[in-house]
Amino acid sequence: MGTSLPVIDVLAWIGVLTFAAMGALAATQKGLDLLGVMVLAAVTAVGGGSIRDIVVGNLPPAVFRDEPKLWAVIVVALLVFRFSRTLDRLGTPMWLLDTLALGVFAALGAETGMEAGLGFFGTVFAGTVSAIGGGMVRDLFLGTVPAVLTNNRDLYASAAAAGAAVVFAIPALLPDLLPFALLCGAATTIALRAASRYLGLRLPRAGAT
Amino acid sequence: MGTSLPVIDVLAWIGVLTFAAMGALAATQKGLDLLGVMVLAAVTAVGGGSIRDIVVGNLPPAVFRDEPKLWAVIVVALLVFRFSRTLDRLGTPMWLLDTLALGVFAALGAETGMEAGLGFFGTVFAGTVSAIGGGMVRDLFLGTVPAVLTNNRDLYASAAAAGAAVVFAIPALLPDLLPFALLCGAATTIALRAASRYLGLRLPRAGAT
Amino acid sequence: MGTSLPVIDVLAWIGVLTFAAMGALAATQKGLDLLGVMVLAAVTAVGGGSIRDIVVGNLPPAVFRDEPKLWAVIVVALLVFRFSRTLDRLGTPMWLLDTLALGVFAALGAETGMEAGLGFFGTVFAGTVSAIGGGMVRDLFLGTVPAVLTNNRDLYASAAAAGAAVVFAIPALLPDLLPFALLCGAATTIALRAASRYLGLRLPRAGAT
Repeated sequence: MGTSLPVIDVLAWIGVLTFAAMGALAATQKGLDLLGVMVLAAVTAVGGGSIRDIVVGNLPPAVFRDEPKLWAVIVVALLVFRFSRTLDRLGTPMWLLDTLALGVFAALGAETGMEAGLGFFGTVFAGTVSAIGGGMVRDLFLGTVPAVLTNNRDLYASAAAAGAAVVFAIPALLPDLLPFALLCGAATTIALRAASRYLGLRLPRAGAT
Repeated sequence: MGTSLPVIDVLAWIGVLTFAAMGALAATQKGLDLLGVMVLAAVTAVGGGSIRDIVVGNLPPAVFRDEPKLWAVIVVALLVFRFSRTLDRLGTPMWLLDTLALGVFAALGAETGMEAGLGFFGTVFAGTVSAIGGGMVRDLFLGTVPAVLTNNRDLYASAAAAGAAVVFAIPALLPDLLPFALLCGAATTIALRAASRYLGLRLPRAGAT
Repeated sequence: MGTSLPVIDVLAWIGVLTFAAMGALAATQKGLDLLGVMVLAAVTAVGGGSIRDIVVGNLPPAVFRDEPKLWAVIVVALLVFRFSRTLDRLGTPMWLLDTLALGVFAALGAETGMEAGLGFFGTVFAGTVSAIGGGMVRDLFLGTVPAVLTNNRDLYASAAAAGAAVVFAIPALLPDLLPFALLCGAATTIALRAASRYLGLRLPRAGAT
């Protein structure tokens, strides 16, 4: 990560812990054992960034060298395993944290893609897979179609893709503005999620045409 | 791709567009939204080659630098989303295009494997995963056992593997014949598919022994 | 693999053939055709080590250059396809071979992770995914939640993770003892599996709290 804004690091930490909690909660609700809960917490929290790093050739993935984040994921998994019922009731706070994490990961993933020299599509892919890849692998492990592909309640993957596209577009138009582009990208994702939740913004579905 | 035959480039384009259309059609029939249709079109069209490139260490995968093909995949996904019922009726033309794409991707994937210094098995894997990997990931995303592993109507993955094996065998026997080997490999795959469809050629199944 | 103990090579061969047989057996029981049986034998036998090699950046994965092992996997798949009923009756011998394979792969995978400079978590991941990754991909291909995430009969993934942790810990405390660490790691995994089978040792599950 070439960015120099400390706020981004703080947001990335919040995002990792949030995704770890959501992965652990899904595993707990499916009745998995303690190891399964830790595995799904880790996969959800760091799976998207790892897929991105494999694709752009940053091997081993950056998170494998970031032991404090991995220890924190395990602690979160243990806490969720013990207190899952409380967490399950925190609907709106979890939605806010999840939306924040989605925006931050999409923006940081797009940055990684641009640093690897990818073009528009590659950058959008890198941002989107960073944001949603962990949740998709979690869903595959739990034996369900990834929710992001079928979800008709809320913009999610498309909000992440739009944020990544903004991160790509701003430096192309206005050089030397990467930190600004990251914040704009994350804000785009968050705004689209909010518009979807509160204003009913949706993508068209096949059955509706 | 070290080959110099323009016909191969044209065939590769036809293959990408065909697989994009088939992925988009499967997503539309499952009622996914517009983003899901675009994702499954892209995964089906370029997923196999991307897995091959990850395995042989060509990172980022070549298609991530081939923006025109990715734009074309998105356009195909939008067209299928709008006109899926028409496409669904084109059984035999789609079978012909799919068989052509399978043969071309198996041959080109085998070439990539040989350029990376792989032996017989590695080359057959590289060719086969190029040809069928995108469809397998699409099936996993749609929550089904990959059709190529269970399909008893038609030779498919085994036809791709045989074509890749031919691409490996010919230059080992007759040097300086790589373009010829590519065409023979693709022709082998296509001939096996045709023999399977019209003559009933099959692999044995466990229940039948 | 930097180790110089020939016994480790022999154990690795036994492990590959055992996992190939178990993958082929699962495919045969699901009624897949001959190609599906060969693919699932190969995926189960070499999938875990390949994922580990992709993650640490050893590309192409080492097994792609180890053609004798791949030929042996195919021969095992053909034998299982023909004699699956006999194999199915060998409960305890297969459990012993599977447990041996699990311990050896966890230890060798941890060694690969340490050679790549990974820390504690990365090494445990590399060992665990080497041991259980092939079986997880096999389960995903067969359309089921990976058994290692839900299994409540027996310690399996957690036994592999504990063995990998031992391989990491011993050289950190006592340098120049890597071959000893590998054997201790494998023994840890095998002992935990045996304790689980014969003494009822279990991980807690979410429903039980």
